[in-house]
Amino acid sequence: MKSIEAGTDSVRMFFEPESVAVVGASRTPGKLGNTILKNLIYWKYPGEIFPVNPKPGDILGLPAYTSVSAIPRPVELAVIAIPIDHVLEVTRECAARGVRGLVIITSGFNEVGAEGNQRLQELLRIARGAGMRIVGPNTTGIVNPYHPFTTTFVELGEVRKGSIAFIAQTGMFAGLMLQRIMTAEDFGLSKVAGLGNKADIADHDILEYLAQDRNTRAIMMYIEGVKDGRRFYDAARRLTKIKPITAMKIGRTPAGAKAAMSHTGSLTGSDEVFDDICRQAGIIRAYDFDELIDFAKMFAYQPIPRSTRTAVVTLSMGAGALASDFCYESGLQLAELKPETLAKVARKSPAWVKLTNPLDIETMVELVGPGEGYQTAVAAALADENVDQCLIVLGTVLTTGADVQFLEAVQKAHPQKSITVCVLGSKGAYEQLCPAIEKFQIPVFPSVRRAVKGLAALNHYRQFNRP
Amino acid sequence: MKSIEAGTDSVRMFFEPESVAVVGASRTPGKLGNTILKNLIYWKYPGEIFPVNPKPGDILGLPAYTSVSAIPRPVELAVIAIPIDHVLEVTRECAARGVRGLVIITSGFNEVGAEGNQRLQELLRIARGAGMRIVGPNTTGIVNPYHPFTTTFVELGEVRKGSIAFIAQTGMFAGLMLQRIMTAEDFGLSKVAGLGNKADIADHDILEYLAQDRNTRAIMMYIEGVKDGRRFYDAARRLTKIKPITAMKIGRTPAGAKAAMSHTGSLTGSDEVFDDICRQAGIIRAYDFDELIDFAKMFAYQPIPRSTRTAVVTLSMGAGALASDFCYESGLQLAELKPETLAKVARKSPAWVKLTNPLDIETMVELVGPGEGYQTAVAAALADENVDQCLIVLGTVLTTGADVQFLEAVQKAHPQKSITVCVLGSKGAYEQLCPAIEKFQIPVFPSVRRAVKGLAALNHYRQFNRP
Repeated sequence: MKSIEAGTDSVRMFFEPESVAVVGASRTPGKLGNTILKNLIYWKYPGEIFPVNPKPGDILGLPAYTSVSAIPRPVELAVIAIPIDHVLEVTRECAARGVRGLVIITSGFNEVGAEGNQRLQELLRIARGAGMRIVGPNTTGIVNPYHPFTTTFVELGEVRKGSIAFIAQTGMFAGLMLQRIMTAEDFGLSKVAGLGNKADIADHDILEYLAQDRNTRAIMMYIEGVKDGRRFYDAARRLTKIKPITAMKIGRTPAGAKAAMSHTGSLTGSDEVFDDICRQAGIIRAYDFDELIDFAKMFAYQPIPRSTRTAVVTLSMGAGALASDFCYESGLQLAELKPETLAKVARKSPAWVKLTNPLDIETMVELVGPGEGYQTAVAAALADENVDQCLIVLGTVLTTGADVQFLEAVQKAHPQKSITVCVLGSKGAYEQLCPAIEKFQIPVFPSVRRAVKGLAALNHYRQFNRP
Repeated sequence: MKSIEAGTDSVRMFFEPESVAVVGASRTPGKLGNTILKNLIYWKYPGEIFPVNPKPGDILGLPAYTSVSAIPRPVELAVIAIPIDHVLEVTRECAARGVRGLVIITSGFNEVGAEGNQRLQELLRIARGAGMRIVGPNTTGIVNPYHPFTTTFVELGEVRKGSIAFIAQTGMFAGLMLQRIMTAEDFGLSKVAGLGNKADIADHDILEYLAQDRNTRAIMMYIEGVKDGRRFYDAARRLTKIKPITAMKIGRTPAGAKAAMSHTGSLTGSDEVFDDICRQAGIIRAYDFDELIDFAKMFAYQPIPRSTRTAVVTLSMGAGALASDFCYESGLQLAELKPETLAKVARKSPAWVKLTNPLDIETMVELVGPGEGYQTAVAAALADENVDQCLIVLGTVLTTGADVQFLEAVQKAHPQKSITVCVLGSKGAYEQLCPAIEKFQIPVFPSVRRAVKGLAALNHYRQFNRP
């Protein structure tokens, strides 16, 4: 029995294989094995592709093979998207053929009970005997926009390159989350790993690989169950020192745990234990998918501020008070603004206005207009040495990209301070302002709570990892 | 000194005045007093409008008057949008002229300290002496789309008529919230009351009025400070028995309370006390603006279910497990589905699939397509007598209005059961599906958490008010 390779090389082949066999490649549009192949062709995967289908002939313009054994050249990776009854037989063929890694899309293993679990044990026995590594089963597998490669069975279209890696557990949810990120967000991804039932490759393997991946700046994880708590903790603890990890875990309650068990056969474990692991390993927790994406966006765009001292610049003191509540609850301190900072705003405001932090600029905006008003207050706040981060609440009195151009210079002048924007008001204005501001790597949120929680995530990372 | 009228008649004049003077009406576009007049004209306010401006001549095509005293006919309501130094003088004039109500937009009263507070006391003395009621000061005032009337100083355009009344405290925030509801939501409003500093008319006055307003089905409140806790409690307790109230209050923390004080001069009070009042009065609390809107939408569209027994129909068991977690935490019970319900789905699923609640329909959808798959599962779940509400998690494999047409018949067949939809995946598909589904009065949310919390709000209302 060959020993399984250690280290990140055995993981790298899943992201950058030199050749891939698609077992279950299909001529029928809409079938999983058709879409997998289509994605590889559309993405211009640079390695060799070997479609495998019992019926001879081309598939999507590529010569197909009737079995893995019939492929005449070396095969590094095989994607398995065939009915469950044939998976073991094909795995044996792959082992004999010297395939090094399998991505098993097919479901029907340990998640369906004793018989499925027996099938899984046999699968692992064959793979271990041949030194093959496995991603899955019951997953969509891999997306790597840098070395264009994917095993995904939903039509992907383009995937924006970026600095966020996403370790997902399950196929459908990961696919929907990916669609959402690609259509509703501006940040891009470095890697996606859907691990399914985690029968072999587990979170810690991917974390070790991502530590060395220079395209990855931060990691978001969707977890149903952790396979090996100790190795997960060790890998995460090492990684968080250099790259922030945000994790969302389901099965936090008895009801959710039962559902997760029927899904990926995951033992979700005690939430208290997972929470301890996260705290000790410096992992930020997210509790729903919006939050997971929000935090990833923060880490993709913004520096880690040196302290929690926050300035709030707002057109609405109602929103300012709401932000103050969320800051207090999230452990962020409202900065004590210096007299000269307040004076810069006071000079353009009515004499009767009393200024403090949150900095209410409604009356200044009435006098000098929204563009000059926001610019004056934000520049003053960020120049204040008592301030390490700034939350800007924009009412949609600013409506065009030109109105927010000043943010580019302000961010450049203070690269070590964090800026976050919340846009309240009309949807149309929001949708104009959001890309115009995120172009400068300043994250935008549609709610005060989400903006403050985003800032808090940066600070939790510092508190956990750079005390 | 005349006594101030009690009851709802003295409030009705603010929403349906027979005539209105706009003091501070302006010829300059962008000025508050210009926009207020423009809104009234654009809305075709059916009563008489008297613009008041020291310079003689027409304003926006209406004959203007140089003072309130110069208006030759009876004036029921006056909107005051002039510099603070002239407010007391104009108030005296209004009192002498027999005006019955004032909406005071101008700020600079108790929210700015002792001098402002003195000004407020004098204002109240004059008004009480003449039996005049006041909305404000420091507010945008009133919006009534049914008897078209508004005192708002932001350009409103159309405001959709609907069944939700909104009691807001502050101008700018209320204005931005209104913009958001009008541009990003599908439900409509019955009344908006921005109460500002609540020097005279306070929440309880409006609640009493709304109890009788047949266009109002549910109430959302944004609160900085409650003026008279006892009367607020009494009015709310009576109203919640027939119409749900959702309230969001800022100043829940020391930081937020300080900001609220500088804003509307509100003493926010202890959050524990407010929480007790809400629980005893049957008010649902919301903690941010998204939640306030989400709950309002639920109450506008859906019946109050008879129990918390919830069916979850989902394309992704990951989302199903997440929904289970949130249900558990929100006190919603996952319904025990009857064997015949599961059989209806099993008949169209692979033999190996084990079905439970959440009802994972991924494999059924692979066999029969998303349209038939969702229809089968949702109809089966709602027909189950163990189910009183249903959460449908749509992946954006359904993409058109035609795909979700079946929801109309299903909702009609079970008018006493609540249905809520969460759409995950691509933004484009979400934006197509959301109006197509909300057309049937079924609320749609972009996150599992928000959908479950929406259902939970309906159940909290029943638990609080119909035990």
